[in-house]
Amino acid sequence: MTKLNFHEDQPTKAQCKATLNSIADALHVIGGKWKLRIIVALKDGNMRFNEMQRLIDGISAKVLSAELKDLEMNGFIRRNVFTSTPVVVEYELTEYADTLGNVLKALSEWGAMHREEVRKSMKKSHSTEAV
Amino acid sequence: MTKLNFHEDQPTKAQCKATLNSIADALHVIGGKWKLRIIVALKDGNMRFNEMQRLIDGISAKVLSAELKDLEMNGFIRRNVFTSTPVVVEYELTEYADTLGNVLKALSEWGAMHREEVRKSMKKSHSTEAV
Repeated sequence: MTKLNFHEDQPTKAQCKATLNSIADALHVIGGKWKLRIIVALKDGNMRFNEMQRLIDGISAKVLSAELKDLEMNGFIRRNVFTSTPVVVEYELTEYADTLGNVLKALSEWGAMHREEVRKSMKKSHSTEAV
Repeated sequence: MTKLNFHEDQPTKAQCKATLNSIADALHVIGGKWKLRIIVALKDGNMRFNEMQRLIDGISAKVLSAELKDLEMNGFIRRNVFTSTPVVVEYELTEYADTLGNVLKALSEWGAMHREEVRKSMKKSHSTEAV
């Protein structure tokens, strides 16, 4: 296991408070259950509303619509309307969404590791039960 | 700006879905407004309930208590009871919390960058108004 070492030495109270504020800022904009998942879904390419709803398990149309508006307002996605017949509305990521690369990478690596840990500990508890 | 490049090449649909699931797993356990902030607060050293509540702006006692129980259940923190007079209860991070190092680092860096961007764009819009 790796140590938390985002400050070279032991953090001071002031550094800790600054980190705390930065994380609060980040979670304020991209926290919650869905925002990052929507962004990852769009990495796959531009998508229409219904495609997105199919890809993201469990999101309702109402929530997806609200989250898309929020993400657009904060500059992470762009809503493109093509005035063809029928009218097509597609969502795409902006350049700014690319700045989340490290956050998404860290979260997806941690999530995969955590799933593996849970799987192992469940296996262990099952084999203990069997004894 | 750095590109999202957590897959070497363009991700396939399957890779995208796997990343999506890992991120969902991660957010399921450490998502929400407070959990990561509590973990960062405890990086500063073991802490009592009241100290934590003072350090984390805006958290209520009820919510802090519920979040601490959740974090304890998921193996991120340990609750130590010292049977002195008066009884002292302290919370500390476990080894498993250390695995979140990269996630916290990425989030705090992104949060700091984002705050700076917002500051710059507000400055710009103010100077435009002045013209």
